Amino acid sequence: MKKFEEKTIHSQEIFSGKIIRLQVDDVELPDGKTAKREIVKHPGAVAVIPINDENKIIMVEQYRKPLDRSLFEIPAGKLEYGEEPLVTAERELEEETGYAAGNMEHLISFYTSPGFADELIHLYIATDLKRIDNPKIGDEDEFVELHEITLQEAIQCVNDKRIYDAKTAYAVLYLQLRMAMSSNE
Amino acid sequence: MKKFEEKTIHSQEIFSGKIIRLQVDDVELPDGKTAKREIVKHPGAVAVIPINDENKIIMVEQYRKPLDRSLFEIPAGKLEYGEEPLVTAERELEEETGYAAGNMEHLISFYTSPGFADELIHLYIATDLKRIDNPKIGDEDEFVELHEITLQEAIQCVNDKRIYDAKTAYAVLYLQLRMAMSSNE
Repeated sequence: MKKFEEKTIHSQEIFSGKIIRLQVDDVELPDGKTAKREIVKHPGAVAVIPINDENKIIMVEQYRKPLDRSLFEIPAGKLEYGEEPLVTAERELEEETGYAAGNMEHLISFYTSPGFADELIHLYIATDLKRIDNPKIGDEDEFVELHEITLQEAIQCVNDKRIYDAKTAYAVLYLQLRMAMSSNE
Repeated sequence: MKKFEEKTIHSQEIFSGKIIRLQVDDVELPDGKTAKREIVKHPGAVAVIPINDENKIIMVEQYRKPLDRSLFEIPAGKLEYGEEPLVTAERELEEETGYAAGNMEHLISFYTSPGFADELIHLYIATDLKRIDNPKIGDEDEFVELHEITLQEAIQCVNDKRIYDAKTAYAVLYLQLRMAMSSNE
């Protein structure tokens, strides 16, 4: 779907970093006028809902420098160049929680900030979890603390405004929707 | 909450645009090591769920240059400098749909991309809608098409992967949660 497409006249790369790139495009609008678009290019990411044997979701508490605060989130991480999202999901689950998933299923994908960034997150659910003896340690610069909560507690956290992260809040409500639909079948 | 806080050693501004700014920070990690953080600063935004007299949600279809595709979204827009989110919500509703809300209620706020950006979206629900005779036309460079769908149709769109935008999908499921909770009271 490209309704109201904006054709690129000129694209200037402003920054190319370890994670994101920034470009400013001059575009032609549907009415023939021109405008500038500030665009953050992101490699894409995965997020994983890990469900343990007690039917609890494993959440991570993590400091986020852009916000200068820590957040409760589901495990997540960005794709390495050319990596299949499923591989990223398995790696991030291991690195952040120390678990491997006997079953890893793709649920849905979504854009997080379509106004200024192309980040696409692929959401997975991980079940049949096995603890790994010597899990890979992820990014050396990543510090997380694990919490295990039920789906009902997670929904309560969304409602109480204790979950501030959109992908986590959406994942929790999507999981609830999915369970409600499967119980109605 | 600042668990695992990363202290800024040095911050360099890379770009300051019309909408976003980009900075690269050198930070000190909890273990005393250092790392770089690429941070997009965003003014924040609002998103509005407009419910019309037929109990339908007014959605906008809009081209998004970062994705090179159009998306179905709820009306949304960024805060002007120093603007109260409620004022932004009323303005964006008028500009994108031509309606004024007799009732505009804040539902929840959330971070869209905490790994690399500080964008915070404030979600509102707009009811008691009145059509405005000569609505303000918003950004000259914004082209949208309106669609009216029921909440059940919107949930179906989330499930069918026709809604790809995280804020819209989350808003739809959050509205459903809220209605389910109020009907249980």
